[in-house]
Amino acid sequence: MLRFDGRQPDEIRPVKITRKFTDLPEGSVLIEVGKTRVICTATVEDKVPPFKKGTGSGWVTAEYSMLPRATAVRNQREASKGKLGGRTMEIQRLIGRALRSIVDLSRLGERTIWLDCDVLQADGGTRTASITGAYVALADAVNYLLKNQLIKQDPLIDSIAAISVGKVDGIPVADLAYEEDSKAEVDMNIVMTGSGRFVEIQGTAEGQPFDQEDLNAFLNLGESGIQKLSALQKEALAKELPVA
Amino acid sequence: MLRFDGRQPDEIRPVKITRKFTDLPEGSVLIEVGKTRVICTATVEDKVPPFKKGTGSGWVTAEYSMLPRATAVRNQREASKGKLGGRTMEIQRLIGRALRSIVDLSRLGERTIWLDCDVLQADGGTRTASITGAYVALADAVNYLLKNQLIKQDPLIDSIAAISVGKVDGIPVADLAYEEDSKAEVDMNIVMTGSGRFVEIQGTAEGQPFDQEDLNAFLNLGESGIQKLSALQKEALAKELPVA
Amino acid sequence: MLRFDGRQPDEIRPVKITRKFTDLPEGSVLIEVGKTRVICTATVEDKVPPFKKGTGSGWVTAEYSMLPRATAVRNQREASKGKLGGRTMEIQRLIGRALRSIVDLSRLGERTIWLDCDVLQADGGTRTASITGAYVALADAVNYLLKNQLIKQDPLIDSIAAISVGKVDGIPVADLAYEEDSKAEVDMNIVMTGSGRFVEIQGTAEGQPFDQEDLNAFLNLGESGIQKLSALQKEALAKELPVA
Amino acid sequence: MLRFDGRQPDEIRPVKITRKFTDLPEGSVLIEVGKTRVICTATVEDKVPPFKKGTGSGWVTAEYSMLPRATAVRNQREASKGKLGGRTMEIQRLIGRALRSIVDLSRLGERTIWLDCDVLQADGGTRTASITGAYVALADAVNYLLKNQLIKQDPLIDSIAAISVGKVDGIPVADLAYEEDSKAEVDMNIVMTGSGRFVEIQGTAEGQPFDQEDLNAFLNLGESGIQKLSALQKEALAKELPVA
Amino acid sequence: MLRFDGRQPDEIRPVKITRKFTDLPEGSVLIEVGKTRVICTATVEDKVPPFKKGTGSGWVTAEYSMLPRATAVRNQREASKGKLGGRTMEIQRLIGRALRSIVDLSRLGERTIWLDCDVLQADGGTRTASITGAYVALADAVNYLLKNQLIKQDPLIDSIAAISVGKVDGIPVADLAYEEDSKAEVDMNIVMTGSGRFVEIQGTAEGQPFDQEDLNAFLNLGESGIQKLSALQKEALAKELPVA
Amino acid sequence: MLRFDGRQPDEIRPVKITRKFTDLPEGSVLIEVGKTRVICTATVEDKVPPFKKGTGSGWVTAEYSMLPRATAVRNQREASKGKLGGRTMEIQRLIGRALRSIVDLSRLGERTIWLDCDVLQADGGTRTASITGAYVALADAVNYLLKNQLIKQDPLIDSIAAISVGKVDGIPVADLAYEEDSKAEVDMNIVMTGSGRFVEIQGTAEGQPFDQEDLNAFLNLGESGIQKLSALQKEALAKELPVA
Repeated sequence: MLRFDGRQPDEIRPVKITRKFTDLPEGSVLIEVGKTRVICTATVEDKVPPFKKGTGSGWVTAEYSMLPRATAVRNQREASKGKLGGRTMEIQRLIGRALRSIVDLSRLGERTIWLDCDVLQADGGTRTASITGAYVALADAVNYLLKNQLIKQDPLIDSIAAISVGKVDGIPVADLAYEEDSKAEVDMNIVMTGSGRFVEIQGTAEGQPFDQEDLNAFLNLGESGIQKLSALQKEALAKELPVA
Repeated sequence: MLRFDGRQPDEIRPVKITRKFTDLPEGSVLIEVGKTRVICTATVEDKVPPFKKGTGSGWVTAEYSMLPRATAVRNQREASKGKLGGRTMEIQRLIGRALRSIVDLSRLGERTIWLDCDVLQADGGTRTASITGAYVALADAVNYLLKNQLIKQDPLIDSIAAISVGKVDGIPVADLAYEEDSKAEVDMNIVMTGSGRFVEIQGTAEGQPFDQEDLNAFLNLGESGIQKLSALQKEALAKELPVA
Repeated sequence: MLRFDGRQPDEIRPVKITRKFTDLPEGSVLIEVGKTRVICTATVEDKVPPFKKGTGSGWVTAEYSMLPRATAVRNQREASKGKLGGRTMEIQRLIGRALRSIVDLSRLGERTIWLDCDVLQADGGTRTASITGAYVALADAVNYLLKNQLIKQDPLIDSIAAISVGKVDGIPVADLAYEEDSKAEVDMNIVMTGSGRFVEIQGTAEGQPFDQEDLNAFLNLGESGIQKLSALQKEALAKELPVA
Repeated sequence: MLRFDGRQPDEIRPVKITRKFTDLPEGSVLIEVGKTRVICTATVEDKVPPFKKGTGSGWVTAEYSMLPRATAVRNQREASKGKLGGRTMEIQRLIGRALRSIVDLSRLGERTIWLDCDVLQADGGTRTASITGAYVALADAVNYLLKNQLIKQDPLIDSIAAISVGKVDGIPVADLAYEEDSKAEVDMNIVMTGSGRFVEIQGTAEGQPFDQEDLNAFLNLGESGIQKLSALQKEALAKELPVA
Repeated sequence: MLRFDGRQPDEIRPVKITRKFTDLPEGSVLIEVGKTRVICTATVEDKVPPFKKGTGSGWVTAEYSMLPRATAVRNQREASKGKLGGRTMEIQRLIGRALRSIVDLSRLGERTIWLDCDVLQADGGTRTASITGAYVALADAVNYLLKNQLIKQDPLIDSIAAISVGKVDGIPVADLAYEEDSKAEVDMNIVMTGSGRFVEIQGTAEGQPFDQEDLNAFLNLGESGIQKLSALQKEALAKELPVA
Repeated sequence: MLRFDGRQPDEIRPVKITRKFTDLPEGSVLIEVGKTRVICTATVEDKVPPFKKGTGSGWVTAEYSMLPRATAVRNQREASKGKLGGRTMEIQRLIGRALRSIVDLSRLGERTIWLDCDVLQADGGTRTASITGAYVALADAVNYLLKNQLIKQDPLIDSIAAISVGKVDGIPVADLAYEEDSKAEVDMNIVMTGSGRFVEIQGTAEGQPFDQEDLNAFLNLGESGIQKLSALQKEALAKELPVA
């Protein structure tokens, strides 16, 4: 039995990674996963948060936002509300943790790399697409630092990507689109390194609790999906960047 | 003498208008004016602000934001600061007024059309590009309402576009890029209808005050630029929209 | 090799559950897990959030806070800062989701049950202790509704408890105290029903990524710990409540 | 004629003062006055507010909060509302002023002592119980400073306690419980030193204005109540503290 | 021995009350007490706060603010800071309570009277001048309601005024100017009805605690000062109002 | 045909400028333009915003507010709302830019001059009256700096004033009162130097767009009005200031 869009249970949506999507950031990536589209930019800033001052070591942090009409129904801007919602905070903390897990911060010097993930269109999996795209933007920012001899050693110790898995109509599936996500019984986000180790697992039973067997199926789907995403990241980064 | 990018004083930058840039909004436009890029979406909402309730008449309003790295130096998100800055408020009020000036609100019924202008890349003239692009998104949203027979009469009584003019190195010029804007002696935004009448004039002497002669030069540049923009809007709207 | 406090790797800290800790709430529980102490109260409110209005169904939600000096260093009140931090939001969203997973909301009628978790003393595991304690407070509030014939059928379809597991000095351990938590390589929170199914798994590699083998060890520790906690909840709820 | 709970007009409710209620603060007191229960902690911090910097002198300040369900009806958290209410501000300013009145700040050095008063259960008189309990926590924090030779001279120049008095059903009474407080014609809070001098008098006619004769009755009730509270504070502080 | 400005201990500063200071409010009073100047306006609004809806009864409330340069050093606007300070909240709650104490709210119908007290120049005693002036503005608003037959019975059951008293250089004095206020050992605000009964007493020992004898002196000074203020209010209200 | 108040189209309302309206600020002006009344104070502060630090140069900035009952209907305080509205921000940015245009900031040294414009009564033209009055307050503050030899050279390189013009019932008119403003088809604010050059032009078509002919009429009315205002400013500043 096929999924609503004809995919196999373990099939991820078409992924397109465009580097240098905008001209000014040190890294600027448009990632498209099916209809989900996220701009991920990386900004190098020559200062660190207070708890890092004087340590000689750097920091990597993330912010996440959706355009008001990334979704079917317009959602009010958090800037107009005057505060960030819980969902936004949770997501940007997750992205930051994920990216930091593959960076040797001591090699950055006292610098912060900001990863800004702005969702142009949301069709499920915006947080995982953000992580996958932000890694490519981060790699470009690191290349910028290396090329300009601002740092000496590559601080990236692995690559990182993320995928959502879940159980829809009783079947474990990978890379849920919004139509699936909204009726999933279980929703799990998996963040893994290119070398195949877990960095983060966040699974939530939306309807029915799940058992060990489900979990194993989720992890297998996650691992296989992440391998594909890692290969796509590698391929994208192998291309020559266009001159601005 | 040519300008820094080789343009004549009255020459506007290349303009590209992409309709249906994203799939979900009733109107979705990417406008590019030189390197300035703004996404303008139009959302139809079936309610009105309190002061319009029970009037049978509708409302048109705008919000404006920049991605943090739309600029050379990353600017902090207003959602993270917890409040909108004065510049943002001023711009979104201007966009809203400009668009309302060519809408017969009584023909909208008790509906609000939200125009969201999000700047992906800023190279001068983001507020004027927002107005010019938002008009096209608004026109698509109005078409959606007409085609679905939600309204009976076209509420658009004219078209609207905007341009910046100013004095750089003593010479009046049209459509300033950031490099010119940052050193302009006078900066003026002109909003005009397609039929050639003024809706808004906002001129500020950044360095030296200006006189009547300067003003006449600005208005001529503005009028000529707006005519070109109006033609481009018309051309963009004449194309068949791709099926989603 | 024993842990810093003499526990075996799978040994949880002493747990004490005091019902009717304060007199006024419909449920009021003090849960002590080692030195961690949390007051969990349940409040029945005769209204629901806007998205539930008119559905005939209820809602369960949670709020979480720490007293400023629950920790070794005083932390500033979020009320004084004027906003909730990301950690607080993440935790209270987790507690709410966890408790909702074992409630048949349609049996509550249009009522909200608020679960307030206030940490008096923090020694690791405050979010998991909050979930475990909140379940008991919720059960008391449900009993209040049943006894007063405000609802007809018991909406609780299972019990719920939570535990933290992690890897400390290379060894997987259960129920981390602060001293262990602060140096853990992996930190995972597991939420399970009394019937032994997963509701939420949140694992984060703080230092080194982890693999499938680690994960299995974590899940086994979690399952065994949750069984003990479920038994303690049951035992606490079996006691006659003192008359106020 | 007796009061609703059988007390004489000048009779205060049973008071219980528990020191070292939590383990981490320099002073940690649970004060119970009838059913009113407040945790008062004292935190020593090695810095002072800007207006004290470089003066060699210290500061004492207070914060006050209620758990959401300290009251019969759940009150919304001020952290969730995003701002402190007027009542909270008024109370925490009062507590701070009261405690500062018996401290020789110059003997503290450039240190701040924070007094956090968190109400677990509210049955009238929470602000006066906070002052009475905070004094004991402050004394413990001062003992900690003296014992660790961080300061040389005892900065406490007197003790301080507080009581509410008022007129209920035409009769002046001391230490009002919530049932009395809610229908009192006059409500007065009196803060006095152990040596019997006034530090603060705040009296408000809720219904009928009062005259000099009423006022004299209130002051007598206040003085007598404060003497009892001062004796209880002294007694509590005379006990050996348990070793943590 | 005279005071710094030549006054006797019980002598109040020159008071000037100007009615209809601005044209639009239902009551508009400029009160000058020495150099302290406060505009007090009364606004009648045809709605009540939620807790009064459907009661048939009205409400009286107050807001207080200082112009940034009412003081010797410019103080930042609370609107710019984004929140009201504790002092402001305390004062506006006091003014509201004081005015409500002499109004029979049931005679107002479901109306709110807002009393806005804006300090143009601050030289001590701004909160007491606000109360004294707000009474006159309130009386004018009530006259407006009566004259326009919007209410039938006069809701004012007494008049109200306020004064500060204190101890300066060891001497009890009335109506402290800023120079005295800033060095007072005790500072007490007394609010009394025209018929000579207390509505509010708020006394604070800034330096030394005070005793019963001091208190008696303060109350005598307060009573005598309030009598003078009440007479001045009466006199001001006796004048014919200018036609706008 | 005369205007509603008998004025000719180019006739401005009676203007009264009172210097030293309050005693404490370095400049304090009450400006009355018809029934519009604004207090403009100038405060000299010995520090500059961060972007000016270390430049040796100063800053001039403005804040604007209305008393709640400056208008026919009471408007809620922005301090109570917790944020500045867009209109307020727009106006205070305009006032600041206007005043900076005639100041040589390098002659101020590292000082800020704050211009606070507080509207006591609003009858149209509050922003233009604020600019016109703020100039006089600024001039007094500059005189204070010169007289006290805190600066050596006069930093004022011109004077500045502002006026509103517009089209009412089809006729271009100057200095609109509220009754005219509320029904104007076009509303334009013009800021000009005493030497007759433009600093700011902000024109908005409220109803009908306007053409070049209208614009010329507006500019002529503006110029003539500004000349009268500049003369009145000069006259006011020529008077000897009363000794405080």
